[in-house]
Order: sequence, then C-alpha cells, then structure tokens
Amino acid sequence: MNKVITVSREFGSGGREFARRLADKLGFAYYDSEIITELAKRTNLAEEYVQSLNERSPAPLFPITIGHTLAPVADVRLEHHNTLFVEQSNLLKELAEKSDCVVVGRCADCCLSDFNPIRIRLYADIDARVERCKARAEESEKLTDREIRQKINETDKARAKYYRFYTGKKWEDALNYDICINTTNKNIKQLVDSFADMLK
Amino acid sequence: MNKVITVSREFGSGGREFARRLADKLGFAYYDSEIITELAKRTNLAEEYVQSLNERSPAPLFPITIGHTLAPVADVRLEHHNTLFVEQSNLLKELAEKSDCVVVGRCADCCLSDFNPIRIRLYADIDARVERCKARAEESEKLTDREIRQKINETDKARAKYYRFYTGKKWEDALNYDICINTTNKNIKQLVDSFADMLK
Repeated sequence: MNKVITVSREFGSGGREFARRLADKLGFAYYDSEIITELAKRTNLAEEYVQSLNERSPAPLFPITIGHTLAPVADVRLEHHNTLFVEQSNLLKELAEKSDCVVVGRCADCCLSDFNPIRIRLYADIDARVERCKARAEESEKLTDREIRQKINETDKARAKYYRFYTGKKWEDALNYDICINTTNKNIKQLVDSFADMLK
Repeated sequence: MNKVITVSREFGSGGREFARRLADKLGFAYYDSEIITELAKRTNLAEEYVQSLNERSPAPLFPITIGHTLAPVADVRLEHHNTLFVEQSNLLKELAEKSDCVVVGRCADCCLSDFNPIRIRLYADIDARVERCKARAEESEKLTDREIRQKINETDKARAKYYRFYTGKKWEDALNYDICINTTNKNIKQLVDSFADMLK
C-alpha cells in the first residue's frame, strides 16, 4: 500500500509550504490546484465555482426564515457541495492508489483512512500566522493586521464546519491527528528537513 | 548550551516510557525519582511527603468556609509547595547546565525556557490510556476500568492546576508545546525510534 501523509492546517500556519516541501523531500506526489481542475472537469462545474466551494461548509446561503422562495438556491449549492465531496473523495483515493502522496486539507485524513495515513496538523499562535500571511501576500493584496486576523478566523471557521459536516468530527481536536506541529516562529524548510527523516 | 527536551503528558499516554527511551536513544540524561530524593534532601522534608505534593496544585486542603482553625494547615502546605517549586526549578536548571537532558512534567518547559527546550506533549484517547494503565499496573494494583478512568481524570486535573498555578498558562494548550504526539495504539519504542533522529 502506498504511503499517504495528510496535512491539516490552521490558516497562516504554513501548511501548504510544509506539504509541498515535504512531498519534494520524500519524493511523494503533491496535489493542490490540480484537484480543483480535475473536479471541475468531472462535475462539469466552472473551476472558479468549484474553488469557491472548496473546504466551505454547505450551510444554506440564507437563513430559512428569510423566505421559502430562496430555498431552492441553497439546495442547488448543497447538492453541488455533496457531489463535489463524493467526487473529491474518489479522486483522492485514485491518487493514493497511484503513488505515495501528501494531501493538504479536504478531510483527507478521513477520506483516505483505508490507507492508514500519517495525519499531521499544523498550528501556530495568531500573531505568527498574521506575520506569515503578510510575508506571503501579493503586492496587490495589502490587508491590515485586523483584516488578516478576520480572514484567518473566517477561514478556520469555514474549514472546521466543512470537516464537521462531512466527517462528524471536530477539526481542531488533536485526537484526529497523529502529530501536531507548532510552526510559531519556525522556519518551515528546517521543520520539513527534521521531519522528513522521521516519516520515511 | 546543552540540549533540553521537556515532555508533558496526559496520564496513561506513555510519557515516562517515551522520555526514558528517548533519553537512552539520544544519550541524554534522564531524571525522575532522583529529583524527588534530591528535593527532600534540600528541603529537609520526607521523601514520601515531597512525592505526595509532586505536580499537585497548592490549593488549600479544605474550603475556607469549613473553619478558620484549619487555615494554618493549608498555609504550611502552600509554603512547602512554593518552596519545593523554587527548589525544583533551581535543581532543573543545575541539571540542564550539566548535560543534555530529558525532563518529564514539573513545568519544565517554563522553568527551563532559557535553554530553549524542545517541548513535547504526549496525548492519547481515553480508552488507549486506560489500556496502557492496565498493561503497566502491578499485580497488587488491580483497578476496574472505571477506577482507572477516574484516576486519569483526577491526575490530569491536578497536573493542569499545578501548571496553571506556577506558569499562568493552560497545561492542555497545544501552543505551549512544539510537537504534540498522539500515542493512541502506538508502540512507544517505535515512536521514539522515529523521533530520535529528528531531535538529534
């Protein structure tokens, strides 16, 4: 059976860089935007739309009390959410069948449980995450610290809801992971260099 | 500066075995009951008494409302608690000055912060911890699952209070550690073999 490493990460904790470097170092496959492209193809949905639903919880767009006329809108999205989740789950299994791999997010720790993955979780304190977001931001995307903090909270809340909805488990519960790594003030490359030997 | 590894652990998660094996593997010093013996010597308190206060929070023995006549008893214990904590903190620093070492519990992550320790936290799900407690129990110490569960909860609560009292921080907060390791259904020896390379 191929080796699978799943990486769950708090927003701004360096999860994507960690996963990419780890895959490089171990010679494992690493899939990221390819998954969105392939899902769009398989579901006939636009890539941007698939991206917009990615790791978002399928809660209705509007509270039910606003009006019943809006209900069908929410239902279509819920259907897309569910279709995408099933397709994504199948796709992840196909990829894991192909070769050793590292997968970020996407409830991969649960979807790929048959592969007995090493489930890593990355976290960091809020100030370190704000700094990491600032360091990697494009010139055009200058947010204030307060805005970044808000984005971090919103993204993590969405990821937690998504995970809860599809796995029934708490995203932030350390018991769902094998190793949790604090990336506060850590250099991700150095962290990966240390961990790669262990995970071989 | 010597290398210091601190191990915080949920009761029954295999912390002591992990620390001892890790120290062996790395050729680091490992101190355990020697600390109690040395503290008893330095404070002129009985070893059993020092042991009984170890990682227990210095809360009064009786609620204040029971009667003021009991207050002095609590004060003496509080004084002993504080004396022991200060002595222990000094002792840990002396030991860390001597050689590379692994220290379990005792708020060592904070007491030895000047040594920039690698702060490890071990945890496991409750069933795995009950099983581990049963596996290591002496023949004479046969507790029911329910009693073991109670012992686990009480010990962890005491450790958390102790940590909170002397460091002002939450014992179970992952941000206080660099790496958290889930020992559920894991063989501690194999875990140590994997981690030792990384921590060299």
